[in-house]
Amino acid sequence: PKSFRVVLLPGDGIGPEVVAEAVKVLEVVSKKSSDFKLSLESHLFGGSAIDASGEPLPASTMKACQEADAILMGSIGGPKWGVNAKVRPEQGLLALRKTLGLYANIRPASLASVSLLDYSPLRPEIARGVDMIVVRELIGGVYFGTRKEQSVEPDVDVAWDTMIYSVQEVQRITRVAAQIALAANPPLVIHSIDKANVLASSRLWRKVVTETLTKEYPQLKFDHHLVDSAAMVIVSNPRKLNGVILTENLFGDILSDQSSVIPGSLGLLPSASLAGAPSVPSPNFKPTLGLYEPIHGSAPDIAGQGIANPIGTILSAAMLLRYSLGLEDAARPSSSLCRKFLIAQRQEGMDYGQRIWEAK
Amino acid sequence: PKSFRVVLLPGDGIGPEVVAEAVKVLEVVSKKSSDFKLSLESHLFGGSAIDASGEPLPASTMKACQEADAILMGSIGGPKWGVNAKVRPEQGLLALRKTLGLYANIRPASLASVSLLDYSPLRPEIARGVDMIVVRELIGGVYFGTRKEQSVEPDVDVAWDTMIYSVQEVQRITRVAAQIALAANPPLVIHSIDKANVLASSRLWRKVVTETLTKEYPQLKFDHHLVDSAAMVIVSNPRKLNGVILTENLFGDILSDQSSVIPGSLGLLPSASLAGAPSVPSPNFKPTLGLYEPIHGSAPDIAGQGIANPIGTILSAAMLLRYSLGLEDAARPSSSLCRKFLIAQRQEGMDYGQRIWEAK
Ligand SMILES: CC(C)[C@H](C(=O)O)[C@@H](O)C(=O)O
Ligand SMILES: CC(C)[C@H](C(=O)O)[C@@H](O)C(=O)O
Repeated sequence: PKSFRVVLLPGDGIGPEVVAEAVKVLEVVSKKSSDFKLSLESHLFGGSAIDASGEPLPASTMKACQEADAILMGSIGGPKWGVNAKVRPEQGLLALRKTLGLYANIRPASLASVSLLDYSPLRPEIARGVDMIVVRELIGGVYFGTRKEQSVEPDVDVAWDTMIYSVQEVQRITRVAAQIALAANPPLVIHSIDKANVLASSRLWRKVVTETLTKEYPQLKFDHHLVDSAAMVIVSNPRKLNGVILTENLFGDILSDQSSVIPGSLGLLPSASLAGAPSVPSPNFKPTLGLYEPIHGSAPDIAGQGIANPIGTILSAAMLLRYSLGLEDAARPSSSLCRKFLIAQRQEGMDYGQRIWEAK
Repeated sequence: PKSFRVVLLPGDGIGPEVVAEAVKVLEVVSKKSSDFKLSLESHLFGGSAIDASGEPLPASTMKACQEADAILMGSIGGPKWGVNAKVRPEQGLLALRKTLGLYANIRPASLASVSLLDYSPLRPEIARGVDMIVVRELIGGVYFGTRKEQSVEPDVDVAWDTMIYSVQEVQRITRVAAQIALAANPPLVIHSIDKANVLASSRLWRKVVTETLTKEYPQLKFDHHLVDSAAMVIVSNPRKLNGVILTENLFGDILSDQSSVIPGSLGLLPSASLAGAPSVPSPNFKPTLGLYEPIHGSAPDIAGQGIANPIGTILSAAMLLRYSLGLEDAARPSSSLCRKFLIAQRQEGMDYGQRIWEAK
């Protein structure tokens, strides 16, 4: 049987307990099949790594991730390691994304697959049928451009960051969005988001997206929205953006978080950060290194109580099986397991997701 | 009687017709009082100015605005003058803001004053009691930093923008937010929004906001939110951000548009862009130059049909009377007039606001 190396980064707060639940699912899946074996190994990451070693991303963790077939993360951060500290958990996550070249962040926000209308903050008639996948560029833009901190000479009263994109960076993320759009039948519409009426980097973005899609994917439909307008539409008429939302790093950070509350429970949503375009469903699967994590935070105030919702992490593990390992058959039972979890949770009258949300 | 010079910039699309309705209100107000006279004069601006003169902000319009006590704008832009054109309407607006030093953009989004719960895309129990005022820094940040377009040498495949803030720019907008918070009784809470876990300009922002409020306004309560988290909270639990939302230019563009759909109708909301902190209500009124405009766009597809909702513009005119001219008594009847409009509209079963929204 094939053997896959999966690195676990449980992290901080509720991270370890949600990862532990996903591990149970992965172990069942691995035991049930004679075609493959999963070898799982945990490593220190985030705040707990800072406490243990002084760094959020120790060299041993970095090395394990570089040698892995896929990475499953819980969550990192917490008030203990605040924004004013010199060494912060987020730095580890940004360094990991950059070093591994995880340029494509994929976050589905759907009310089509799971029936969660009652949980949405939007009116049911507005939320019904929302089905979007945010594809966010993850290692470019203002996150990784040159910057200057306030106290640095000569202008000690000024700080700045650079929002920068190259043609090649925009091309490759556009191709990821296109592959995802094409994986559906009929193909999804691509909505590219920018601020081209003000920003030079957005004008490049819009031009390259247009050229790449027109030349390489003439069969796909696409349009452009300004980021301020998109932020309105996601609240007032989100079905208008059904399909793939393609955007740069900072706008993607904001819009993916905004759209993730529409299904009503952050605790249920997975994400993938990939080093290439996914090749599924496909007869010619090509593995893509990926880091998978639930979209919720570390919710330190409910950590250790066993009430954190593990479904976002389990669905992230399902994405891992699908995109990085090509185990489509194994990925499907994991999602149906989640639905069972969800039904059980409702029967008990518990809403883990809501609790995670409120704790954020 | 005192005489005030008000410049009208009707602009494009539905701009002229909504400004025409607000002018009727201003004329009634002016006629009714023996204490002051309003002299109103229209000037070309935006796309219609491009058509007439080749520029969105002709020198004569600029001069009139510089000599005015206040400016009332309709809306600008339209598909006719797209993002790829060399000369665009938005450039005129950005240049006008910068030249007049209009650094403080103020946008109330409230479900407290007008009862619009039925129109909100949020569930009534989520939308009820939402009452926020966005204070957005308007002439700094990535809108006005150095930038490089794609085709410029030597890196023709790269484009970039600079997100830059100085201590003094953050101080003055913080003081505007503080003045607005203090004008309410009890004072409003200030929620400052940034991305300090990633951006140097946001770390400066957070530090200066904290220092300014702590030193100069020890009586005010404030907190900090990351922009991605704020974008979630505005949808899932917006009352949590009731009070003043204080933020930089780009985040303010996104969040103010996002929050403006919560009251359910873009056509109803006003905005002010000021060159200083407002001094109302106060016995020592100090006039502040301001540009006032409804927050909706130019909705070219419904222009000329007489169905555009003028209330956002009329409420903007009320803000003009209050903040730039110090005519508190005159400002109040204009708002009550709006309520009458609104009731009439509902009786007729019309929803202008919704139409503007859908056309956007
Ligand atoms: C932790 C933070 C740096 C990160 C980001 O902004 O990318 C997070 O918000 C995310 O979206 O994964
Ligand atoms: C037209 C555009 C440049 C402008 C902005 O982004 O500031 C608009 O969206 C606004 O918010 O007034």
